[in-house]
Amino acid sequence: MADMRIQLEEKDIPTHWYNVVSDMPNPPSPPLGPDGNPVGPEKMLAIFPGALLEQEMSAERWIPIPEPVREIYRLWRPTPLCRAWRLEQMLGTPAKIYYKYEGVSPAGSHKVNTSVPQAYFNKQAGIKRISTETGAGQWGSSMALAGNMFGLDVRVYMVKVSYDQKPFRRSMMQTWGAEVFASPSNMTNTGRAILAKDPNNEGSLGIAISEAVEEAATRPDTNYALGSVLNHVCLHQTVIGLEAKKQFAKINEYPDIVFGCCGGGSNFAGVAFPFLADKAAGDAKAKNTRLVAVEPTSCPTLTKGIYTYDFGDASGFTPMMKMYTLGHDFMPPGIHAGGLRYHGDSPLVSQLLHEGLIEAIAVPQVATFAAGVQFSKAEGIIPAPESNHAIRAVIDEALRCKETGEAKTLFFNLSGHGHFDMASYDRYFAGKLEDYEYPRAAIEESLAHLPKVGG
Amino acid sequence: MADMRIQLEEKDIPTHWYNVVSDMPNPPSPPLGPDGNPVGPEKMLAIFPGALLEQEMSAERWIPIPEPVREIYRLWRPTPLCRAWRLEQMLGTPAKIYYKYEGVSPAGSHKVNTSVPQAYFNKQAGIKRISTETGAGQWGSSMALAGNMFGLDVRVYMVKVSYDQKPFRRSMMQTWGAEVFASPSNMTNTGRAILAKDPNNEGSLGIAISEAVEEAATRPDTNYALGSVLNHVCLHQTVIGLEAKKQFAKINEYPDIVFGCCGGGSNFAGVAFPFLADKAAGDAKAKNTRLVAVEPTSCPTLTKGIYTYDFGDASGFTPMMKMYTLGHDFMPPGIHAGGLRYHGDSPLVSQLLHEGLIEAIAVPQVATFAAGVQFSKAEGIIPAPESNHAIRAVIDEALRCKETGEAKTLFFNLSGHGHFDMASYDRYFAGKLEDYEYPRAAIEESLAHLPKVGG
Repeated sequence: MADMRIQLEEKDIPTHWYNVVSDMPNPPSPPLGPDGNPVGPEKMLAIFPGALLEQEMSAERWIPIPEPVREIYRLWRPTPLCRAWRLEQMLGTPAKIYYKYEGVSPAGSHKVNTSVPQAYFNKQAGIKRISTETGAGQWGSSMALAGNMFGLDVRVYMVKVSYDQKPFRRSMMQTWGAEVFASPSNMTNTGRAILAKDPNNEGSLGIAISEAVEEAATRPDTNYALGSVLNHVCLHQTVIGLEAKKQFAKINEYPDIVFGCCGGGSNFAGVAFPFLADKAAGDAKAKNTRLVAVEPTSCPTLTKGIYTYDFGDASGFTPMMKMYTLGHDFMPPGIHAGGLRYHGDSPLVSQLLHEGLIEAIAVPQVATFAAGVQFSKAEGIIPAPESNHAIRAVIDEALRCKETGEAKTLFFNLSGHGHFDMASYDRYFAGKLEDYEYPRAAIEESLAHLPKVGG
Repeated sequence: MADMRIQLEEKDIPTHWYNVVSDMPNPPSPPLGPDGNPVGPEKMLAIFPGALLEQEMSAERWIPIPEPVREIYRLWRPTPLCRAWRLEQMLGTPAKIYYKYEGVSPAGSHKVNTSVPQAYFNKQAGIKRISTETGAGQWGSSMALAGNMFGLDVRVYMVKVSYDQKPFRRSMMQTWGAEVFASPSNMTNTGRAILAKDPNNEGSLGIAISEAVEEAATRPDTNYALGSVLNHVCLHQTVIGLEAKKQFAKINEYPDIVFGCCGGGSNFAGVAFPFLADKAAGDAKAKNTRLVAVEPTSCPTLTKGIYTYDFGDASGFTPMMKMYTLGHDFMPPGIHAGGLRYHGDSPLVSQLLHEGLIEAIAVPQVATFAAGVQFSKAEGIIPAPESNHAIRAVIDEALRCKETGEAKTLFFNLSGHGHFDMASYDRYFAGKLEDYEYPRAAIEESLAHLPKVGG
């Protein structure tokens, strides 16, 4: 039997990120300000360093990864490409199943692929502190780790209900030296105003973003960092797919279908965009390769949203971006356990879907946990609930292959482990998770509040 | 800069375990029954399979690892040997620091190195079910994973206070299909008797062991499994040190000091015994290599106990073993957070210490967490509290090297990650952990209850 894990050496860590913009049929639609005109980088310099804004706007095909960033990547990269032999046997499928495992990073997910360069470029720009928000804590942990590595202070506004209910992600951030505040906090005007009205407010991701951005906008030594959606974040994640291509080449394989779970889009972008490069280059083996983003039916941005300009945040504070959206005041239902609850999606992922270069499907929640448990019984690793969406799609496809007898090569990104998400598994085992298909009427209602500009 | 991680290929996974008995100056002292006579394997067959008892008694130097066991090992082995460059820089030490990282296993620690072969040999013996106990849950998770891999039912008696306070280890076991009962339970006579007297009994490891052993002893289809102490458990863990030696050979290095944390002893045995083989073979480079077991000052078995026959369990149910012991009714204080709380130690580790072939030191609790946090800030990984004991010893030695200017090569086993131990880190950050040096008088009191036989 061939190896279960296809490994690379540290010298194989990519030296450049791949910028999909260079291969897109049409240029990206620019972010728009409240006046309907494109927002220039100068307005963003208050909260982002110039180097990241350059990446955000760049059409260069390859963007160099600074050596100090690769130096930190080496703590866990290259990540293994694994053949899921035991899952294939359990399913009795002729399909070959491969996964890239990003859960080997110290913070436990792919998010550190971008928190590390974000910390680096901020440090280079003379910034002393990063402010950011976190919900369940995966992004906050990744930013805490990265800030620690480059000697930046990190302040994390953590949604209060998570802060109280999920103390272990908080302890993880504190271990790496970050300051963690329950949001709404009394650190910002936004937080103080909300607490004045409602001292028991449980917080929301929208409020936490507003607090983090306010801190960055009002302090010259502080910048803001975002863990998904933006072009430069998707860019940084391409190390995943770039490494995977080298690993597939080592075993003379190439995927027929690439799956990635999709919330803000950076995980999917990271695993899938480098395969688009092969398609754009006319590579024969890539010609029929399908790239499939997998989202939850309870937050069906790509499959039920519309492609238009909308705000990036709930309160309409950010520029408008052209993307698939459910409306910026969309709220995923409380029964939804597994991340991927952003109302919009990465503008790059959205445009590629709109232009027919990638596909999107939605899967219901209970079935994703069933897939995750089946995967863990076969392969050992307990996946993050987000990753379970991709696993569900892969298992469904593998079972289709069993019916048709096709020996397709399926590949997905196992974006993280579930060690800090066992409470969601508990709810699954206790039968407390429900499926939810977001009703058309509710989506229409939310879409009715789209900003007037653009479209 | 050289690679941070020295990797091996799957074909480099050891084909044999190393049995240190073959290199010991004196044969191991046998376990004794209540009559003071050695206990033959026939009495143990009610709860262990013959193949494991053979390993328990064997003096063969090399014991083959069955191919189906290596097949499961391949899901995470070979584990990386890592150079802690960033920690060295942080300490400013001329010492070179290496660690083997066993936390990459799906259950998160080295314990699966033995749970997998234990499940395999039980399956081969026609056993349908394994019963075992767990405290915080690390061993129970490892047994749950291994049982799942070989189609064995697994029942875990989990100390009630842990069952209630640490639900996530329980969910992990359930994900892999194990049944988990809060102990004392109503599944056994032992449990029912205790609950009849005290329905709110919070349980103890001693009670959980009694329940698991009772189930195994009274059901022909069920065996018992133990996660440390016994010879065959130490044997299985030698894959750690055997791989490490191959990895050191690849970079033309050899450790001056090998550190392992030590509770029941199997982790230390796994990392250290293979280096004893080199010493026994007269290998010049191994001549001055020191092997150091690191234990907590609050449970100072090797450093303050005496070497004599004592029961393996609190209630005097098991055979007596010759080992360093604090007395079988020793209770580590409640302030003790980080595992390693067994009153005795592996008879093999004990005998090697008694004969001067290895060393032991004890470190206080608060300093171990400080070491763990420092390590995580340098290397990213948040270690298990048990592993922090080895890290404390390594950092202390590295700082001594800084004073003396010696460029020693230090090596330790990072036995697991701390993802399920963040509550202990929380207590550390909150200043709620205390140091505790077990008082001589309390040890004398406990030692006064030693069984009369042997010595």
